[in-house]
Order: sequence, then structure tokens, then C-alpha cells
Amino acid sequence: MSKPVVKQIVLASRPTGLPTAENFRLEEVPMRPLPHGGLLLRVLYLSLDPYMRGRMDDRKSYARSVAIGEAMAGESVCEVLESDRPGYAPGDIVLAHTGWRTHAAWDGPAPRKLDPKRAPITTGLGVLGMPGFTAYAGLYLIGRPKAGETVVVAAASGPVGSLVGQFAKLAGAKAVGIAGGTDKCRYVVDDLRFDACLDHRAPDLPEKLAAACPKGIDVYFENVGGAVWQAVLPLLNTFARVPVCGLISQYSAAGAASGPNLLPATMREILTKSLTLRGFINYEFAAEHFAEFLKTVGAGIADGRIRYREDVTDGLENAPAAFIGLLQGKNFGKALVRVSG
Amino acid sequence: MSKPVVKQIVLASRPTGLPTAENFRLEEVPMRPLPHGGLLLRVLYLSLDPYMRGRMDDRKSYARSVAIGEAMAGESVCEVLESDRPGYAPGDIVLAHTGWRTHAAWDGPAPRKLDPKRAPITTGLGVLGMPGFTAYAGLYLIGRPKAGETVVVAAASGPVGSLVGQFAKLAGAKAVGIAGGTDKCRYVVDDLRFDACLDHRAPDLPEKLAAACPKGIDVYFENVGGAVWQAVLPLLNTFARVPVCGLISQYSAAGAASGPNLLPATMREILTKSLTLRGFINYEFAAEHFAEFLKTVGAGIADGRIRYREDVTDGLENAPAAFIGLLQGKNFGKALVRVSG
Repeated sequence: MSKPVVKQIVLASRPTGLPTAENFRLEEVPMRPLPHGGLLLRVLYLSLDPYMRGRMDDRKSYARSVAIGEAMAGESVCEVLESDRPGYAPGDIVLAHTGWRTHAAWDGPAPRKLDPKRAPITTGLGVLGMPGFTAYAGLYLIGRPKAGETVVVAAASGPVGSLVGQFAKLAGAKAVGIAGGTDKCRYVVDDLRFDACLDHRAPDLPEKLAAACPKGIDVYFENVGGAVWQAVLPLLNTFARVPVCGLISQYSAAGAASGPNLLPATMREILTKSLTLRGFINYEFAAEHFAEFLKTVGAGIADGRIRYREDVTDGLENAPAAFIGLLQGKNFGKALVRVSG
Repeated sequence: MSKPVVKQIVLASRPTGLPTAENFRLEEVPMRPLPHGGLLLRVLYLSLDPYMRGRMDDRKSYARSVAIGEAMAGESVCEVLESDRPGYAPGDIVLAHTGWRTHAAWDGPAPRKLDPKRAPITTGLGVLGMPGFTAYAGLYLIGRPKAGETVVVAAASGPVGSLVGQFAKLAGAKAVGIAGGTDKCRYVVDDLRFDACLDHRAPDLPEKLAAACPKGIDVYFENVGGAVWQAVLPLLNTFARVPVCGLISQYSAAGAASGPNLLPATMREILTKSLTLRGFINYEFAAEHFAEFLKTVGAGIADGRIRYREDVTDGLENAPAAFIGLLQGKNFGKALVRVSG
């Protein structure tokens, strides 16, 4: 079998602020041979996620930076082309951290197999994958909403936020979303059945949020930071919980440190309201809770209690533009790139 | 029995930044009669604590503000002069929230009785009182240090910080203190037996702190905020815990919101290091843990494993100056005012 040419998108240069097309480069490289004990994979769908912006910077974070000239990091749904590993056969569908490329020679840990008959394979990158489990762990294990409490989440039409609100409702709490624009807000209320959704572009967001949360906020699932945090802070109730899962508003904000110092006010609220802020990465909880997550949320999707939406871009060459759009909130649902198949 | 004249210190005006003598006024008022079912109290020692600065502001906090013309709030050790309450007799020593005054007519909840034979009565305001329990609850119930971990606390010669470090040592952790000046640092290491103590006035505090914590910081007990937090933040380990108990550096800092915005960097560390920040007020934990605290720490004092220091000012009229000094870190040990006796 002749080896296909691999297309991949590498980091051409490090961005300052929002990335541009010039920070990425499409390359063709020869396919590596089947690794001993490994797999040859064809990428079907690539996941685009906000955390990838952090990988483009050359500074310490919870995962290492992408090097200049190296393929962008990322998870994908793949078809097994060739296998030298017991338990994997050509045609199997798996999840793997292949990076932004069309094919990969895989010799890492055992990739998770997906059953296309149980759920669409793209859900392994969204509602039944890392974003879904992030929402599940952050809301249920850190936020711990009680019936009657109020849960607020931004990026509410996105893959994490959309589930946070739906999980809050399943726990008997009130769910208030924040999203960008009328269409997204309508989807969040009409389709996802949040109690309310506010447009973060509204200049009077603080007042609107206060009106939507007359009993204050008990859980704020933090995935954006910035102006939304400033609107949420005065509304937090005593003993409120804040799972901190992302800060997309500041990932590309090179000038975030200018302006007034907002730290003292945040620390004061933490103190006087006995708040809990807890940063987390989903895999901290995976060993103990991923199986129950898959079972619970899989059942919720099957019976229609849990809904999701995908925003699919065609072609690996269009991944950079789609990713830049994601950082600007232009996606509407889980951002995916259809690479082949 | 003729009623004594009561001296009290009232809030004359609200401070901007650090309070001045003009914000306080000494008054004489007639003694109220013995309340039905209550007590007449003579104040022996008044406690001065940083939280009192917050009470001088007219803004929402976890306790209500002191009104202009009202006596400053505070807890004291008192002798019962007259009693109309079963279980209390003249001569009994009790703790009560009398405020800054020489005598009080008490008709509130049952004051805690102190046994002068078990421990000096002033310890009821310090090591065996609110500051001690604050250290106990924050360190053991939120910080949860494990053997071999590193615990950092500022104001390390003060009533809370001194116990945080000693409790950390009892848990098998390394204790690193931060304090103001050579004398305090020597006391923290030599008498309190912390592993190290750094002078917060040193311009190279961040470097010195990094050198004193070669394995990073696992628990930072936050009672000061400001520059110390900035030095601690980059040293925090993944999953570090930060009980937030006070922010004395910003209580009187009217211009705290100027300068660069330090919030994004703090939020980023919370996210990427899976930090826990948890504000608390000691009484959240009192019902469940105060009795065990009294027993454990009382035994530690009796056998010398736990040490403490008091800084006593004579005369109620000198309370404002002592309090202003406390906010500047001029006290050396638990700040008390000997009011009478």
C-alpha cells in the first residue's frame, strides 16, 4: 500500500494577541511508516478548542508549547488505516491527539475507540468528549449546584457552556447563559432550555444580569474572564463556587494588564463572601468520573434531554481561519474541521 | 451600687485610606441599667483586629458598618459586675462583643466564660479565641497541608500567622513566614520554630521567597494581599490551596485600583495550576470545630508546643493609636488594650 502524502498545519510564528493567517503554514510531508506496535491513522475530524491559543505562546502552562515549525496540537477523530496493535483493526474509529494533520503514525497510549452506532463520531470531540466532560466535572464536582440555586455560564452556545446550563437544569438549578448575539441567545433559551440568555455585547450587561439573577449567583462557571467576570462578581452570593475552566477573553489580549487594577476588588469579594475559585483541567477527574459521564450524558443525548450543536468547517487548509474565528466567538456550536471522509 | 460613667470610643468620621486620630472620639456616657436577663460588664481587655478597618467603611461586607457616632465594634474580655442571667455571677470572666468601651450592659447571646486557672484570660482574644481559630480552620480545613509540603504565611509574628506556621509544623509541613523587620523574623524562627522567615520590606522578596521554597508553595495562607501575593503567585504548585482570611495591605489602600491590572495574571495561574482560592470567616466552621480547636490548642499551649505573644497597650484612650499602628504592622504579637483591671 503506497503511503499517502500528509498535509499538516504548523506554527509558522508566535502571535501577539489574536493570531493571524501568517502564524500558520500548510506543509506536505511524507507519511511515516507504521510504527512497531502502533497505528496509521487517517484524520476524519479535527477539534478546534480555545486552549490551543495557549499552546502557541512560549510560556509555561499546563501543557508544553508548540515549537515553531511543529504541527499545531489537537485532538481528532480518526479511521485506523493499518494496525500493529492488538485490539485495533483497519476501519476502527478512534480518538487521538494527532495534531492538525491529515494522517498520523501513532505509537502513543491506547486511543479511545468510538462506536459509530451509539452516537455520531463527532460527539467524541464535543458533547461526549473533552468539552462535555469539562462541563460535567466543573459543574457537578466543583460547582455542585443545589436545586433552586442560580448558575451562570458564558459562551453558552459553545460546547462547554451549552452543557453547563443543561446540566444545571438537570440538577434543578436556574440556568442563565451569556452569549454573543441574538441568534445564539435564542438558541440557548429555545433549544437548550436555559431560563435566560443575555448578549454579552449589550452595554448594560451588568444591569441585565442582575435582573436575570434576582436571587444572586451561586455558581459561576468561568470560561471567558474579562468583562463578564466584572459583571458577575457583585452578584455572587456568600459561599458561591466558581469553577475556572477557561479565560478566552484574555488568551489573545496582549494589553490585558493595562487599565485599572481589578485584582483587589476580586480578592475582597473572595474574602467577604467566602467564595471558592477553583481552576481545573478536565483530566484531573477523568479516572474517577469519565465512565459515569459517558453513561449519563450518552443516555441524555439518546433520549433528547441533552442537546448539542456543531459548527463544521470543510478542509484542513481552512482550520487556521476557523480557529481565529473561534477566538473571536464566531463559531456557533462545537468547532470542528472535516479533514477527510 | 452607683453606676459608673462609661467611657467609649466612637467613630467620628469615616477614614480615607489609613485612619487618623480624627476619625475617633472619646466620649463619656451614663451606664445603662442592668438589662432584664442580662449582665453588667466591666471591660478588662479589648482586642484590636484588622477586620475593624472594614467596619469603618460605609460599604457592604460580611458584617454591618459602624455608624458615625456609634462605638467602634470589637470583642473584649470582661468581668461580670452584676447578673440577671442564670449561670453568670459577679466576678465571672467572659468574652463579649462589647465594642470599644469601659463597661457594657449586655443582653445578647450567652457570652463564653473563661477559666482564669486554665489559661491567661487574654488568650481568649488571641491564641484561644477568634484569631487562633481562624488560623486553625483556614489551615487545617481549607489549606489541608500534607507532610513534606510547604506552607507560606505573612504577618507571621501576628496572632493568626504565628499559629498558621506552628500548625503547619505540627502537620509535618515546612513553614515559611513573612514578617516586617529583623526582630519579628528572628522571633518567628527562634521562638515559633518556623523553618524560615523573610522580611517583607526586602526589595528582593520574590527572589528570597523562591530560594526559601525550592519545592514551590502548596499552601499560601492569605492574610495580607498586595505585594506578598505577587511574590507568592509564581511559586504556587499545581493544586495549591489558598485560604483567604484577610487582606490587610489593601484595607487602607485607597488607591489600590491604580497601576497595572493584576487580575488577568492571577486568573491565569488559578486556571493553569488548578489552584483553589477560598475566602472564609472563622465562624463558618465554629459549630463543628471550635471545641476540638480549644482542646487541641489548649493542650499545645500547656505543654509548650504552641507559643504566642501579646502586644498590650494601656488605656482605652490609646486604642485608636494602637489600632492605626496595627494597620501599619507596628504591633508585635496579638494587639490588646488593657482597659481596666
